[in-house]
Order: sequence, then structure tokens, then C-alpha cells
Amino acid sequence: MASPTQALNQIKLAMASTNDLFNAEVFRKRNFAALEQIYTRDARILPPGAPMVSGRPGIKEFWSNLIHAVNAKTAVLTSIDVIPVGDGVVEIGRATLGIEPEGQGPAEMEVKYLVYWRQEDGLWKWHIDIWNQNS
Amino acid sequence: MASPTQALNQIKLAMASTNDLFNAEVFRKRNFAALEQIYTRDARILPPGAPMVSGRPGIKEFWSNLIHAVNAKTAVLTSIDVIPVGDGVVEIGRATLGIEPEGQGPAEMEVKYLVYWRQEDGLWKWHIDIWNQNS
Repeated sequence: MASPTQALNQIKLAMASTNDLFNAEVFRKRNFAALEQIYTRDARILPPGAPMVSGRPGIKEFWSNLIHAVNAKTAVLTSIDVIPVGDGVVEIGRATLGIEPEGQGPAEMEVKYLVYWRQEDGLWKWHIDIWNQNS
Repeated sequence: MASPTQALNQIKLAMASTNDLFNAEVFRKRNFAALEQIYTRDARILPPGAPMVSGRPGIKEFWSNLIHAVNAKTAVLTSIDVIPVGDGVVEIGRATLGIEPEGQGPAEMEVKYLVYWRQEDGLWKWHIDIWNQNS
């Protein structure tokens, strides 16, 4: 039997691998099909400057549009706090987005986020995802 | 014994009364001491355009500054989804803020939010609170 600490560490590793996928596949390779391994089927995102988006098709469209619009290259996510809640996890984190908008030099955007995680098909995924900028 | 549905309805009523307090006391009366009944002692807020703030003294200062800066008058909160998670609740909601900035007419701001709720001293309170604007 795993101790609660070992179990939580396992979950944290699984979460880190989901977060890494967002950078490696979605941002670096623009492989938007990978969002199926990152968001649950009925996930919701609450993006700044836009209404809530429900469901994976809309979420794929959102990220495809945004990544192309600002010519985003990288999204490095760091967990600040991981709180087990029932069958899920609440995560506070920060993200550094590397972007290269047309006609401008490379720039970085600092973002903080709250994600409510659920397990689906054996993977830990983002079920509700909201973020905003620090400045 | 209360059924799970009855228990959840009781929690929703308690949450609505906390949300009403934010409007009636904090925004309408500028009674910032009421934030003690709204946020847990070690609550965190993740406001757009500013870094994360941890703990009630900093949270009181944040809301006092913001409400004075934009001359805010009302904050009407509406729950969109209430999800019980372990001992807490995850709430998606929207807020309409009524503001009257100096030298300008009254205006409304539309905000959406995610709050992770916990019980403290018999009250349901906001433990992590993040929001952003729709436009």
C-alpha cells in the first residue's frame, strides 16, 4: 500500500507530465490533438478577455486561435500549490508564455492560474482552468 | 439525516449568504471587517493585473484599494456551477460590478470567477479566489 504522501507524489508526477505536454505538444509542436490528453471531455476554460468555453472542441479552437494570434512558442507551467480535494486536485500555478508577435521581438507573459483536476481514462486532466496576467 | 441533495442545498444557501455579504457589506457599506466572514484566515486571491495576495490583512487592503480606486458601489454574484469536492466546494460564477469612476458616469464590469470554498468557524468561506473580465 502506498502511504498518502507517496500517493500524492504519484499524482504530482502525473500532473507534471500533463503540464509538460501542454508545452511540448500544444505550444512547441502546435499539436492540438494533444489537448485531448490535457483537458477532460467536458472541461471548461475561463480565459481573460473572453467568455467561458465549455467542451474540448471549443477549447481546441481557443488555443489554436490564441497560439497563432500571438505566435506563441512555449508555455512553461510551475505548480505553486497542489491540494487534494475529494477525487480531484486544486492546483495554483504560474506559467511563463514565450511569444513572438509578428513584427515584434520575442517577449514573455507571466500568468497565474487555478486548475481543478480530475482523472479521466487513467490520466490526470484539467477539468476547470482559469487564469489571468500579473500586470 | 439529510439526503445528499438536501445537504448540498444547505451548503448552496450558506454560500449565497456569504456572496450576498460581499455585496451588502463590503461593496455597499465599505465595511472591510466583513471580509473576515467571507475569506478564510489563510485565503489567497489571484487578481487580474496584480500578483497573488495571501492572508486576510493583504486581502482587506486589496479590496479597500480597488473599491476606492474605481468608486465601486455593488458586486452582484451569481453561482453558475457548484461542485462538492471533499470537504470543500468548487464554484464557477459571474459577478457584475457597479462602478462610478471619478468624472465618469456609472458603468458595469462583467467578471467570471472560480472559488474554492472551505468551512471555517461554521461559515462557508472563500479559500482561493481567482477572476478575470470577459472583455
